[in-house]
Amino acid sequence: MKQTVAIIGAGETGAGWAARFRVMGWDVRLFDPDEMARGLVGAVLQQARRGLPGLSDVALPDTGDMVFCQTISEAVQGADWIQECLPERLELKRKVFQKIQEHCDRRAVIASSSGAFTLAELQGCATRPEQIIATHALAPIYLLPLVELAVNDVNPPEVTARAKEVLQGIGMAPVAQQGGERVSVALQTEADRLIAEGMATAAGISDVLRYGPGLRWAASGLDAPQDAVLVAMLRALKAQDAGAGVVLNRFDATQTEPAPDIKRPLPTVTRTVPLDWTDYNGHMNEARYLQAFGDATDRFMKIIGCDADYIASGGSYFTVETHIRHLDEVHAGARIRVETQCLLGEGKKMHLFHRMYEGDRLLATGEHMLIHVSLDTRRATVPADHIAGRLRAIAKAHAALGVPDGVGRAIV
Amino acid sequence: MKQTVAIIGAGETGAGWAARFRVMGWDVRLFDPDEMARGLVGAVLQQARRGLPGLSDVALPDTGDMVFCQTISEAVQGADWIQECLPERLELKRKVFQKIQEHCDRRAVIASSSGAFTLAELQGCATRPEQIIATHALAPIYLLPLVELAVNDVNPPEVTARAKEVLQGIGMAPVAQQGGERVSVALQTEADRLIAEGMATAAGISDVLRYGPGLRWAASGLDAPQDAVLVAMLRALKAQDAGAGVVLNRFDATQTEPAPDIKRPLPTVTRTVPLDWTDYNGHMNEARYLQAFGDATDRFMKIIGCDADYIASGGSYFTVETHIRHLDEVHAGARIRVETQCLLGEGKKMHLFHRMYEGDRLLATGEHMLIHVSLDTRRATVPADHIAGRLRAIAKAHAALGVPDGVGRAIV
Repeated sequence: MKQTVAIIGAGETGAGWAARFRVMGWDVRLFDPDEMARGLVGAVLQQARRGLPGLSDVALPDTGDMVFCQTISEAVQGADWIQECLPERLELKRKVFQKIQEHCDRRAVIASSSGAFTLAELQGCATRPEQIIATHALAPIYLLPLVELAVNDVNPPEVTARAKEVLQGIGMAPVAQQGGERVSVALQTEADRLIAEGMATAAGISDVLRYGPGLRWAASGLDAPQDAVLVAMLRALKAQDAGAGVVLNRFDATQTEPAPDIKRPLPTVTRTVPLDWTDYNGHMNEARYLQAFGDATDRFMKIIGCDADYIASGGSYFTVETHIRHLDEVHAGARIRVETQCLLGEGKKMHLFHRMYEGDRLLATGEHMLIHVSLDTRRATVPADHIAGRLRAIAKAHAALGVPDGVGRAIV
Repeated sequence: MKQTVAIIGAGETGAGWAARFRVMGWDVRLFDPDEMARGLVGAVLQQARRGLPGLSDVALPDTGDMVFCQTISEAVQGADWIQECLPERLELKRKVFQKIQEHCDRRAVIASSSGAFTLAELQGCATRPEQIIATHALAPIYLLPLVELAVNDVNPPEVTARAKEVLQGIGMAPVAQQGGERVSVALQTEADRLIAEGMATAAGISDVLRYGPGLRWAASGLDAPQDAVLVAMLRALKAQDAGAGVVLNRFDATQTEPAPDIKRPLPTVTRTVPLDWTDYNGHMNEARYLQAFGDATDRFMKIIGCDADYIASGGSYFTVETHIRHLDEVHAGARIRVETQCLLGEGKKMHLFHRMYEGDRLLATGEHMLIHVSLDTRRATVPADHIAGRLRAIAKAHAALGVPDGVGRAIV
């Protein structure tokens, strides 16, 4: 059954709540006297639609409807949840709570976004204080699951239960306390002090957080983190070239690769299987074989001159067909290598055959047909001459190696 | 050229430094009067070998040699870098620096791990203070790149340059300051205060950090994070079922999936393409197609009863062969679905055909041959009767659907 939330005040906080509720399937009514609010809400909603649904490995409910209301009474009438997102001025909030309670359902939950006042202060002059709780979240509210949920003796147990149910239902993690923000404030205060003393810079403190304690806190709070969790986070950051991942990419770039001998299959990947590449069977996940073969293809493309500059100029190769044979298992920590043989490199086509080894043990083969495309038209085109030339030279040299076992096979 | 580090004091800090230097190709000499140190160093080294090399997408140098020395003089003679990892007692450290400088090379860098004393204090009674710097890191030192590098006017520029070069060479990110740890201490102090006041619990503060500010600090320090970076971290944590990823998995588990009609291809994946699934071409990365098809196979396995309990009892299906056709592109934020047709389900074999769609648009097909295995022997076996029965029923129902276009194809 569709539920309705009323958002009172559509600044950054209100827009964040509106976006999360709506993407999670709630109908949203917004009230904000400022006409500028619409633009902000639209922009935040667009970001939420790009980021939030993909966090799940299942489909979310259909997005709800959204409407801007002219009055508070119109917004809150019949709403199941009312999220107050006004500036941190106690008198204003109290006045608005009175207004809300003149028009809203008695069973609705009224949640204040305040991080500055205690729940008792917020309930202070209310007609029905038992209906009011505090839910303090952190931007971007549509992505971060944190919400501090404050209830007190004035709230009956069913209000608390309902609040938890609603917050979990929109993907959040209610933490039953108030004041957790003080640890963030303490950190920022000490950072300001270090900078004022000339001991550190803002950039230096950001570096410290990104390269060390931030990772630990994200992984496990005040407890000791597990290696696999840190590795998974570091590798996610590496793929985004952000945070500590920048350090890892900079390090990789310093590791030189020898110029390949094109008379042999080309060494295109030499790496260790990361801790986050294994599945519930304890061996490397099947999608990671293709990731390694994809990296081998990228390396081969670089060898023939199809590098970042060429791609930026509008040409690239797209994989159109892939055939993988899984021949043996491999575990985290093992050193694997991929050798790549070019079977064909003519016109728009590039036909590659990858063999993955641990030592002498053949783990898998990957046969890939790629087509050169224009990134503007997304259609097949011939590559630039220098690429065509290098590709042809390798294909010619590799023709002498013969057709490997397993090429051209169908699944039977 | 192989380089040598001497580690003086092999507690947790010394063991972490030893493991990082060694996995990064340095020869390591350790000195610690405590015989127990060997066991700790061995355990930390094993963790480092599992976790650190996989952070790189290239091969690391071969692991260096390691030896325990009986004396400080033996450890430091001819060493290129000397890492002091003693307890935080200034007199002890000063005494050991004098001993080190009696025997070490004048060009060696002597780095103190101290976080408690200023560099000037550490250099205090040294024979050659210009040789001494401070490098303060955070556990696990073999995974986290953070190192605060303190130098002062006493150190000549070549010592600073050499220190940066060595630290970057072992994959670390030297931050040129001292005292950054104070922000962590301030956070911990405020946490202790909140707990003492009865405002929060340690578990509650850990939750706050893991679900909110920890993610922001890890992504971007004191600056505002980018959505794609937060999404990538959240999804990495989800795959590990750790930190905020636990919240995401709990949410997914509440989303019910309808019982499938086995007369039709089975809906096995319905999801949104996450922000971290796209590549430099701006469309979904080829390995992610196989990840989605792998998820579809997992769902199909669950439908026939090959679920977590069955896998824990020792049976599972392994993919032996995969054939993917990439037919059209798809971007982040798009909703995709996979429909799965069973082509064969007899004896040890399971032959599946997945079609991936965005709306009516066919994006890719995946043809997969799987073999049922015993997880004890890693050999092919027949599945349990209840699984064989359900699989046979679906295969029989799906036979009426005919053989889809693209099945049994080879790459030509």
